[in-house]
Amino acid sequence: MFKRYLLAPGPTPVPPEVLLAMAMPIIHHRAPEFLPLFEEARQNLKWLFQTKNDVLILSSSGTGGMEGSVTNFLSPGDKAIVINGGKFGERWLKICQAYGITPIEIKVEWGYAVKLEDVEKALKKDPSIKAVLMQASETSTGVAHNTKAIADIVKKYADTILVVDAITALGVFDIKTDEWGLDVVITGSQKALMLPPGLAFVSISDKAWKFAEKAKTPKFYFNFKKERENLLKNQTNFTSAVSLIIGLREALKMMKNEGLENIFNRHSRLAEATRKGVQAIGLSLFPKESPSNALTAVSAPDGFDGQKIYKELRERYGITAAGGQDHLKGKVFRIAHLGYADTFDVITAISGLEMVLKGMGYKLELGKGVGAAEEILIK
Amino acid sequence: MFKRYLLAPGPTPVPPEVLLAMAMPIIHHRAPEFLPLFEEARQNLKWLFQTKNDVLILSSSGTGGMEGSVTNFLSPGDKAIVINGGKFGERWLKICQAYGITPIEIKVEWGYAVKLEDVEKALKKDPSIKAVLMQASETSTGVAHNTKAIADIVKKYADTILVVDAITALGVFDIKTDEWGLDVVITGSQKALMLPPGLAFVSISDKAWKFAEKAKTPKFYFNFKKERENLLKNQTNFTSAVSLIIGLREALKMMKNEGLENIFNRHSRLAEATRKGVQAIGLSLFPKESPSNALTAVSAPDGFDGQKIYKELRERYGITAAGGQDHLKGKVFRIAHLGYADTFDVITAISGLEMVLKGMGYKLELGKGVGAAEEILIK
Repeated sequence: MFKRYLLAPGPTPVPPEVLLAMAMPIIHHRAPEFLPLFEEARQNLKWLFQTKNDVLILSSSGTGGMEGSVTNFLSPGDKAIVINGGKFGERWLKICQAYGITPIEIKVEWGYAVKLEDVEKALKKDPSIKAVLMQASETSTGVAHNTKAIADIVKKYADTILVVDAITALGVFDIKTDEWGLDVVITGSQKALMLPPGLAFVSISDKAWKFAEKAKTPKFYFNFKKERENLLKNQTNFTSAVSLIIGLREALKMMKNEGLENIFNRHSRLAEATRKGVQAIGLSLFPKESPSNALTAVSAPDGFDGQKIYKELRERYGITAAGGQDHLKGKVFRIAHLGYADTFDVITAISGLEMVLKGMGYKLELGKGVGAAEEILIK
Repeated sequence: MFKRYLLAPGPTPVPPEVLLAMAMPIIHHRAPEFLPLFEEARQNLKWLFQTKNDVLILSSSGTGGMEGSVTNFLSPGDKAIVINGGKFGERWLKICQAYGITPIEIKVEWGYAVKLEDVEKALKKDPSIKAVLMQASETSTGVAHNTKAIADIVKKYADTILVVDAITALGVFDIKTDEWGLDVVITGSQKALMLPPGLAFVSISDKAWKFAEKAKTPKFYFNFKKERENLLKNQTNFTSAVSLIIGLREALKMMKNEGLENIFNRHSRLAEATRKGVQAIGLSLFPKESPSNALTAVSAPDGFDGQKIYKELRERYGITAAGGQDHLKGKVFRIAHLGYADTFDVITAISGLEMVLKGMGYKLELGKGVGAAEEILIK
């Protein structure tokens, strides 16, 4: 017997309630028995997004939602600020390049949050900029950018929308879509929503819908206007990923029972415990500021290979965490605590890490990291 | 208690073995325990597609596969023949229009198969045509176009590829991808593959890959070259829809156990029994020629509303069949027999239909349609 523990920043574990709901015989996506389930999921998505607007439900990974959030609001030749502080910031760049949008890159050193004055300056310098593309939580570095503060800047510009990749943020920490004036907010199913991968969700403000009227970038599968028309009929434009939507309804019911404040507090508590735990055994956090509560990126100690730590966790202890991406490969490893995660997921992670590091010859007192995590978790 | 029967042309029923496989705890899409499952699914997809080429696995509905099969092989301004004999033929038109491809439409009256000489003529007339876009089985009319014969025509043109939407054909009747020289073949998860919706599959010939080198239509999420590069590493470009792929592996295992010939024979037998059954009670088939073995489109008898028949089947007997689409609404209803379908699915459909029609005042001898179906099914 070898038990496995999924502590990666997506896919995240799926609760048994959700797995079993999805294992029910499939129903037709236009059949009357599907409609109330779909309606309930739609309403609860609005609750999760903290918006009065309909939230689009797309059959794709989160990246499909990102692509649609460029092609539906911008035209070739338009300029967009890309806040690029990691692998997912780079993805915005690549999407812009693929569709002929001119990216104005604000390069942020990996491990740091974007400086607000850089966003302000870039917008002032060129008022023709149509959009600011950002991550609320950059999964590759474990850093959260300050979404609210950036929204406060962008909303001063009537001809600019803010597009927020909240794929590892929504349902982890507070993202007040309407109150903060976030024009486009994207998430995916396999993160805080505790579902398998395969769905993307996008909320869109009235301001952004006006951009959609003028956007000339070609699109068909990710046509947001058509999706909205279909949502008014309680349907998706193309065949819904029925089983995932059945799971979505179940997961949202669980989240609603817990309540937004409790969900945010839980993630904050787990994240703090993880940070304290790894620091207590002498490791340092990769983020130099503003760590995300979705996951903790940890720098591998000098002379130790981060990929080896990640592999040992998996092979010896059955823990699937995540390594570093691109130039961080070998330099960091990442422990997630988003979605269906609680106290003993953190304990498992820190304990596994202690045993792995000890086995690799790193000097530490076994149990010290766990103790530090418990100091937080006991509260 | 009210038992439900799904007899729609997608989503189709999912076997319990597959539902339970998908209900197992989720694993990470880059983790070593996922890789052999993904590899097995990939190999068995080649078997199902009858191709030596890798089959792309996309997280989207089948329409995403169709979109990618235009954007990856054609450039704005290119011409493509669209064989348009139903709602899904129209979809090719709309995709072309969205991306600036010039469609040369071969309009086929709904209920008929395309005339081969029309394809031949259109290609001869304009040798600059880059692609022929067709349905192997047009789900809206229940008609199968002659894929092999069209391939024989198209392969004479070195600068033209044949793109086959085989979404309700593959795994239903014989589609010899490599032997017939089909350049691009597309299917979706929720048809013969007996899975929930959410995956699209695309096989691509060497000839088509050469077109991909030159195609200038913008794309990002559906970038086939990137997908192929990732398949060489046994991965998908973006996060795989893990649970659906786990189900895919299970469904393909079941299909391989049955064998291609048996699968095709089963569908042929069920389709023939359905056709004989509905005809025995005096109804006529909507297709005037070449009925598809995936589903049977039946004309509503004079003075009877096809939508009412469809609704009564569902509401009184729990049978979800399908109504008519667009201008066929009310004029036809459709009974599917693809995927996880066997003898008593046909019996259920014909029996339900007999009782519904009787209840609506249509004159028929109860049991006569079932008897005619049994004549075929007993063999």
